[in-house]
Amino acid sequence: MNAQQKFDAAIKENNSLVCLGLDVQIDQLPQAIRSQRNPLFEFNKAIIDATHDVVATYKPNIAFYEAYGIEGLKQLKMTIDYLHKSYANTPIILDAKRADIGNTSVMYAKAVYGYWEADAVTVYPHLGLDAVQPFFEYKHKLTILLLRTSNPDAAKLSDLKVNEKPFYLHLAAEVKSWNKENAGIFVGATYPTQLREIREIFPENFFLSAGLGAQGGDAKEAVQAGMDKNHGGIVFNASRSIIYASAGADFAEKAHEAAQKLRDEINSYRI
Amino acid sequence: MNAQQKFDAAIKENNSLVCLGLDVQIDQLPQAIRSQRNPLFEFNKAIIDATHDVVATYKPNIAFYEAYGIEGLKQLKMTIDYLHKSYANTPIILDAKRADIGNTSVMYAKAVYGYWEADAVTVYPHLGLDAVQPFFEYKHKLTILLLRTSNPDAAKLSDLKVNEKPFYLHLAAEVKSWNKENAGIFVGATYPTQLREIREIFPENFFLSAGLGAQGGDAKEAVQAGMDKNHGGIVFNASRSIIYASAGADFAEKAHEAAQKLRDEINSYRI
Repeated sequence: MNAQQKFDAAIKENNSLVCLGLDVQIDQLPQAIRSQRNPLFEFNKAIIDATHDVVATYKPNIAFYEAYGIEGLKQLKMTIDYLHKSYANTPIILDAKRADIGNTSVMYAKAVYGYWEADAVTVYPHLGLDAVQPFFEYKHKLTILLLRTSNPDAAKLSDLKVNEKPFYLHLAAEVKSWNKENAGIFVGATYPTQLREIREIFPENFFLSAGLGAQGGDAKEAVQAGMDKNHGGIVFNASRSIIYASAGADFAEKAHEAAQKLRDEINSYRI
Repeated sequence: MNAQQKFDAAIKENNSLVCLGLDVQIDQLPQAIRSQRNPLFEFNKAIIDATHDVVATYKPNIAFYEAYGIEGLKQLKMTIDYLHKSYANTPIILDAKRADIGNTSVMYAKAVYGYWEADAVTVYPHLGLDAVQPFFEYKHKLTILLLRTSNPDAAKLSDLKVNEKPFYLHLAAEVKSWNKENAGIFVGATYPTQLREIREIFPENFFLSAGLGAQGGDAKEAVQAGMDKNHGGIVFNASRSIIYASAGADFAEKAHEAAQKLRDEINSYRI
């Protein structure tokens, strides 16, 4: 089973397009967790155990672990190992946003797929094909190309007009010309029009989106713009709104509630 | 002393514009090093001890350590600690090529400046200012923006014409409008014309370039295009051509020779 099939199966199994972002910060964790030996891992484990039946995939953003150095990265490894061991059918997206020239990308690809054992990873396509080819060599993995990020200033450069067409559509056309089956596509949910345009260019590819929750996108528009012809083929990431739904002892229970609520809301627009 | 001053002082002290890339791969190391407990660190230590008087700065690319997981990253930390302890005046560029939206960039900035204790780090400006602002908050550090990479396919997107002007010049204009004193600029040395154009836009900023050696740029053109009005303000990275100058027991001695030769060649064009 390749990564895209693993994603499709997980979406079907839990009837969910929710991607849960494990973007954990020690100072945001409940007090009882903070004092433990491996607080990031213990928090993740409790969140995963509570939510595994309502989400399609987990997406740790590696920045949140790197910030705590080797100690943080060890707990990321523990989290990924725990997922593989306890929930082997649940795919893992490592949100690493890597990009470098060819011989360095070989090492990043080895890191994210070989060492971290992610099913999918986010990378920038802006340097051209030779810079991302080493990721695509891992044929059973899904390499997700960031076509349009969701931050406010992204538009300044992404929307620059090149021959009457915004830059991000040239980027999309360039990526399309690579003709990679194992390419995933990222477009922020805060831009449903762009999401729809880009979905039309890539009708078969798997999509990752983000920004429905904390960043305030319109959920209905984004879901309908992003899903494929089978009303799936995309996951929407949410993180803080779910994992920090409660700062008390009931954080895992509240995270389950919040994830289920988001799943059901998204599903109501999938018809 | 801020990072740019530290770079200027190191360039003057060793009369060198050489940046030595510590991009180490275990299978490229001399046999005697490979069998040691911390081969990446032991190799780096020997290279640093042999070259510290002829280079301006060291630039480990974090990808080469991430590929070996926690074990590799521990040896990167050992390398950086060794540099700070033994050669405190030598600045360190962590080549990490990070880029993410604001709240995640806060964590990456904490990682590279707080945990890794780099003097400078490479980041992509393509997402706009809000995504890199957290790096600039570290005012005494140098955040190096990748304006034009040196890989063959980079031109496809970088050179797209927007109102008769290539995209990379729009990117440069956008970065210029941020007006950041603690911004460094990266332009590949394989494109001396672009290097000259971008140096004219940023006459005062510190530059990092690469591709004189293994990637085959014309050294004379690149040096004259990239230096500032004081014939400095830029370093040129070389890695494999120096650190792997010999695969034998004399690797450190040969690395010193190769670094010195590159320094002297670059200096011959600085007049």
